[in-house]
Order: sequence, then C-alpha cells, then structure tokens
Amino acid sequence: MHTKLSGWDDTIVAIATPPGIGAIGVLRISGSQAFDIIQKLFPSKILKEQPANTLHVGYLKEDENILDEVVISLFKNPASYTGEDVIEIGCHGSVYVQQQVLDALIRNGARLAKAGEFTQRAFLNKKLDLTQAEAVGDLIASNTKASQNAALKNMRGGFSNVLRELREELIKFSSLIELELDFSEEDVEFADRNKFLILIRDIEKTVNRLLNSFKLGNVIKNGVSVAIVGKPNAGKSTLLNTLLNENRAIVSEIAGTTRDTIEEIININDILFRLIDTAGIRDHSEDIIENMGVLKSKEKIKQVDIVLYLFDANNMEVEELKLIEDEIKGQNPNTVLVANKTDILQKELHEQFAGAIFISAKEEIGIESLKNILFAMAGGTSINNENIVITNARHYAALTEVLKSLQDIKSGLATNISGDLLSIDINRSLHYLGEITGEVTNEDRLNYIFSKFCIGK
Amino acid sequence: MHTKLSGWDDTIVAIATPPGIGAIGVLRISGSQAFDIIQKLFPSKILKEQPANTLHVGYLKEDENILDEVVISLFKNPASYTGEDVIEIGCHGSVYVQQQVLDALIRNGARLAKAGEFTQRAFLNKKLDLTQAEAVGDLIASNTKASQNAALKNMRGGFSNVLRELREELIKFSSLIELELDFSEEDVEFADRNKFLILIRDIEKTVNRLLNSFKLGNVIKNGVSVAIVGKPNAGKSTLLNTLLNENRAIVSEIAGTTRDTIEEIININDILFRLIDTAGIRDHSEDIIENMGVLKSKEKIKQVDIVLYLFDANNMEVEELKLIEDEIKGQNPNTVLVANKTDILQKELHEQFAGAIFISAKEEIGIESLKNILFAMAGGTSINNENIVITNARHYAALTEVLKSLQDIKSGLATNISGDLLSIDINRSLHYLGEITGEVTNEDRLNYIFSKFCIGK
Repeated sequence: MHTKLSGWDDTIVAIATPPGIGAIGVLRISGSQAFDIIQKLFPSKILKEQPANTLHVGYLKEDENILDEVVISLFKNPASYTGEDVIEIGCHGSVYVQQQVLDALIRNGARLAKAGEFTQRAFLNKKLDLTQAEAVGDLIASNTKASQNAALKNMRGGFSNVLRELREELIKFSSLIELELDFSEEDVEFADRNKFLILIRDIEKTVNRLLNSFKLGNVIKNGVSVAIVGKPNAGKSTLLNTLLNENRAIVSEIAGTTRDTIEEIININDILFRLIDTAGIRDHSEDIIENMGVLKSKEKIKQVDIVLYLFDANNMEVEELKLIEDEIKGQNPNTVLVANKTDILQKELHEQFAGAIFISAKEEIGIESLKNILFAMAGGTSINNENIVITNARHYAALTEVLKSLQDIKSGLATNISGDLLSIDINRSLHYLGEITGEVTNEDRLNYIFSKFCIGK
Repeated sequence: MHTKLSGWDDTIVAIATPPGIGAIGVLRISGSQAFDIIQKLFPSKILKEQPANTLHVGYLKEDENILDEVVISLFKNPASYTGEDVIEIGCHGSVYVQQQVLDALIRNGARLAKAGEFTQRAFLNKKLDLTQAEAVGDLIASNTKASQNAALKNMRGGFSNVLRELREELIKFSSLIELELDFSEEDVEFADRNKFLILIRDIEKTVNRLLNSFKLGNVIKNGVSVAIVGKPNAGKSTLLNTLLNENRAIVSEIAGTTRDTIEEIININDILFRLIDTAGIRDHSEDIIENMGVLKSKEKIKQVDIVLYLFDANNMEVEELKLIEDEIKGQNPNTVLVANKTDILQKELHEQFAGAIFISAKEEIGIESLKNILFAMAGGTSINNENIVITNARHYAALTEVLKSLQDIKSGLATNISGDLLSIDINRSLHYLGEITGEVTNEDRLNYIFSKFCIGK
C-alpha cells in the first residue's frame, strides 16, 4: 500500500510550461481526484478505464462551453512524478486559453499548486530524496554544461548514494554500540574501537572531499564575479568589450538575475564569469590613493571572487604599482595585475612589471592567456564528470556539522569514553547526514526549500 | 496509402512551449525519420515497437553524455497532428537544457522547423483545411472568450462546412451545365435556369451574411480603438483612469503588441477596447480650432474606430460644441460627445447638450452607460456562439470576389447567356471559395500564411 503524509490529500494544478505564448502549453494536475476532475471536463472517454502512460486527444468542455482541443497524458499512482495520479493537459499555447483551462480545473475541485509542490509531493511520497529534489530545481536553473551535469548527477542520486553509504556504515557501528549498552552490566565490547576509528577516518576523508568540492560547486552553479578596476584610461572598457565580443555568454533571462548590479556575463570553458566594470566609479579627488582608481571600488573589491587590476604599462611607475598591489591584495588576495597597451610598450619595460599579465585589449594580444588564468583561478581545471560536487549551501552547512561530530567521535575514542556518550556523537552525525537527504527534516524547512522552485514543478 | 506532397520529406523539430524557464519544456519532432532520430538518443526502449499514443520515461543520451531525463510521447502517422510520425519530448524547463536537446536532435538529423511548419504539414497532409489551420493560429493568439470561441469554431470546421455546402451546390449546377456543353449541338438544357437563380440568390445571401460578420469578426479578433479627445482639463486622464481601475484587461505580453502607440486596454463584456489618451497631444496655438483640442488629434481621430469627445459641461458653449461636433464627425462619424463633471453641473444646463452622454469621471457617474454605448457601437450585442463569424482579411477578400462572380452569374442568367460563358463565372466562384479553404492555392501564398504562426506550431 502506497502511504502518504496527512495534509496532502487535495489535488493540485498548475501551468507547467513557461509563461507566455507558444505553440503548446502544458498544465499538470496531481492528486487522488485528478482523474475525477479531468473527467468532468473530458466527455470523450472514461479516463479511469484507460491504461497508464497513454495519450488521449479530445475536447475539454465545461458544460457546453468548449475550452480547447487537448492532448491528455495519463500517469497512474504510484508510477508518476509525484507518486500520485498525475494528468498532463497539452493545450494550445494561448495565455488566455491556458488560463481558462486552469480556472476550469480549479472550479471543478483542484487547488492551485504552490511553488515546488509537485516535487515536494514526490519527496513526501519517497519518489526522490531531498538532494534529488533540490537537483531538479538546479537542473531547471542550469545554464552551462557543468551546472547541467552536476544537477543531473545529483538528480540520479549520485550524492545521495555517497551519503547513504556513510550512514549505513555508521549505523552498523551504532547498533553494535547500542547492543553493548543492553549488556552494559557485563562489560562486553561488540564494537571494535580500532576498526571504528579507521571507519571514522575514512568517513572524515569523504566528508572533507565533499566540503572542499563546494567552492567548485558554487562556481559551477553561481559563476564567478570579477571586478575590473584601474585608473581612467587604463583600458577597462576596451578589455570588457574584447572579452565580450569574443565570447559572450548566452544567459537566460530569469526573473531575479542580478542584471542590475552585474555588467556582463561571459562563458570561459563552461564557467560563467560575471564581469563588473568599475569604469562607472569615477574619482574626482586629488588624493593619491583615490587617484589609483582603487578606493572607490573598495566595496566591490572585497565582494568579488577575483579582481583584475588593469593599468597602462606605458604610464605606470614600478613604485606606484607596488603600492596599489599591496592596497588591493589587502582587500582581496585573488588579484591579478594586468599590464595593458603592451602593443606600444618598449621591450625593456616588460621586466619592470614581473608578475603581471601582459595584454593589449585593443590588439587582442594575451586575451587567451588572461581567460586561462581566470578559468584556473576559478578552479575550473578540476571540473570533471566523475566526481560528486556539492553545489548547495544547505548541504555544506550540514556536512560541516557532520565533520564536527566526527571529530568529537575521534576524541571520544582517543579518551576511551563510554559507549552511551559515543552513541550520542554518532547519532549527531547520523542526524546531520539524514538532514541532507531529508530523512530527518521538519515541515518549515521543507516548505522553505521548495518555495524556491518554480510553480508547476 | 497516405500521400504527401514532394519536398516535405525531411524531419523537423522545434521547441513548442513558450520561450523561457518553466517546470517543463516540450520539443516536437515530425517526419518520417522522427522515430529513428529519437532512437539514437533514447537507449532504454525500441520506440518503433511501442504502441502509438503512449508515454515513455527515460534518459536522453548523446554518446555517454546525459542530456536530460524526459517523457516521450509517441504519435504515429497518420494519426498525429501533422499526419506524419510525431514525437514530443517533455524535458526539464531550463532554457539551456531545452537548447541542448534541440541541438542534439539537429545534430542527429532533424531540421529546425520554420514558423507554422507543423501546421503547414498538417494542411498538406489534409488533416486540416486552410481555414482550420488559420484558426489554430487565431486560437493561440486569442485573448478573450469571444476570440477563443470564434477560433475554436473555425478550427472545428464551422466555416469550412458552410463553404463546402456552397461549393457542392455550385458544383452540382456546374456539372449539369458542362453536360449541356457536351450535347451543345442538340440544344438541351439540363440545368434549370430558374432553380439556378434561386440557388445563386441563396448563396449570395450567405456570402453577404459572412461578409457582414467581418466587422464584428475584426472587433472580436483585434479589438476596438477608441481615441479620447478634448481640451486640456476636460478630464481625459481621469476618465481613462476610471475606466481602467474598474476593469483593466489582462492582456498577454506578446512581442509586437502595439503597446508603443496604444495606451491601455480594457475589456468590456469580452471585447477589448484600446483606449488612446490624446492628453499628450498639447495645443499651444491661440487658433480657435486648435484650442478645441481637436486639430492635433486629427490623425488619430481618422484612424480609430470610435472617438470620445470629452468636454467640461460647466465650461462649454453650445455654439462651440456644435462647431467641434461638426469638425470631428467630419473626420470620423463614430463620435460620441461626453459631457463630464456633471456632478457639479446646474440642472438646467443638461438640456443644452442633448445628444451627449453625461458622466462624472471623478465621481464615477454614468461610466456604466458609457461602457454600454462603446460595447453597442462595436457591435458587441450581436456576438453569439451560434453564428459563423469571419475574422480573417484574406477570407473577406476572397468572399468579396465570390460575391462579384455571383452577381455576374445573375446578370448572365438575366440576359440568358450561353452555358459556356455561365460556366466561366461559376468556375470563378468556385475558385475563390476554394482559395479560402486551400483547395485552390499556391506555395508562396501558403508560405506567407504560415509564416505568421509561431515556431513549434
């Protein structure tokens, strides 16, 4: 028997395709009343008598009012996305028609779905664990091959499988220790403490690897911010244009994309770099530090992942550059000095600026090297399709707690603490591991996680 | 055997859902290679062995690269939208993922579909006639109940059926007359000229009714433009706001919607009125006519369907109003005089402005009456679900030609012209009737008609 949590008995509906006009629009309805509700509007066939996973063409009618000619897809509980009865209605892609069909379904007993509610039901019906559900959201938001791959891998349970293995091994030891507690008066030791220490160290290694992958995961999922700073006439706009003209990223227009603060996005070997041109930040002051073109950009410099300090190599003193370098690197160590206009630079001056990248934004010299450096600084060289990469701050936070409790277990083992105290630390590890996959959770947290999904998913 | 026109042998693909991010996106592929192309990317099942109208979940893979987990809908030739093999792929609604899947299908042998090409194939494969195909486009663009109904009725063949009946009756007579020609030396008359005259008059009546419905059809499909003109301080903006606040239309954001020139849209009993506020058109001149607030709006006044001339009833001379009325009605007979600010008007002044509508935009007095008048002027009262209404200028033009040839037939009958001459006029009628449904057509015309569709339909 298929079990459900209580409070999820109603039948939900939403438009599942992007808003706007297209050839077709798809509405999705899920819940125990899905067939009954559609049946009221679809006179041509008895839908319940049709086999699962079949398609049916016919008119959607409310009373005598024809709404549309539609194609209906039937999925039956539990073999559906949500685990409930699911029907998808492919209608003509007029905004008006889609809205009419939606309204009719609501009038006939469906409730408008909340954001992410279909996937939340899939989670509650154990069709997906929480990391897989989150990966569905990530896949829909993906905009590079790397972010698509990371999401697909997690959607298929890659991350969950790693966590499950860790949990299972911990649970094995945990139950041996619990067994000891039952026999506590006899002072037996079922759980071999040395083997346990080895296991904990292994788990710790895996958790550390996952935690370390987050920096890359974040880069894959959210891209890398790069501030281009420098004095007026250093060539910042020319550099920006050169980078953009060669390789402008196709980035989808998402509501909430940080277009307002971010200038332009480029894709370098499948990592998105958000280039922030600080050219707009003018310095009118005579103060020497401000004149460096740095001070006004200070806030940006602290916030971004990488700073490119661009200077005109024909018009820069070695001493001044040293001052600037110290000033900026004090704010952000991921700073690259970029010597521009080297196409007109005297040869002997190259040595002065050792450590800088030499380019000519205008003549497009050194641009490939600069991009390779950006890619390497972002950790791009370690992207591969094999490793599990965590991309979610929630997972990072929980794994950090797992690591802490593993360290507590280790100290416990070192000081030979009693089985019941050890058991507490093990349960803490298990708790945080379970929180990631959703085995341990609460409704508020779930609602928060799914509220970030789009309607219809 | 299912027949196809030549030159349509390739397999086409397009994203069929609206552009952007959603829970799901649907790609559609149609043509003889549809199954083979998808099969290269869908390893889980032999799709050709699956029954038609079934759904299949699995991974879409190109080499070892997973593109997405998808739901595949199978439709088999000839029982599909286009009459060809059609497969729809429901994938995750990331713009990036949809594009990746589209690119993979093109790499594997599909061609990107042109706008309307799926429907054009449906037409060429005789799944739809031309008026039905055009109705599909109208349905997708529909934004009111009336435009949805008109499109649905035509999509179901309502208009085609009327035309087919007319054609069949004409053809019956035509063949009798052709028969006479075969026996021309014997001077027989198989076709009863009196009966034929009665038939022609009946057909003429139907064609006239259809032609007359075009005004309403145009209103249903394209809405009604209304210019609000008047002197500064007549209350134009207040009236506009009052109309909008009560009943602002939900109009989809279509690329190409005439937002630039049109101010606001309201829905009155299912007809869309585009209200053009000429408040922006200022008159600085001292000239008396310009001071009427009319001259600068002259162009608009000529172009729109209805003109509302708004004036402050407390600040208008009867003589001046008469002058203005003549001036405006000379440009556009569909002018309504609207006396505003009647909430503060002395009672006896009402009689002065007989023929005007009395309102107070500020106090929302008389607004319902004004809306009823707009609705009636647009012909809204004759909207009903039963009558066939033509909404397409192409159909109007062809029916006008039909009417002309019917009149020629009538004069021919009156002057007792020979059967072979009569036959020419009958064939001309048949030609134009056939042009509407697409029985008579040429490729350029077809390409033009379908080019106005969206991609994926």
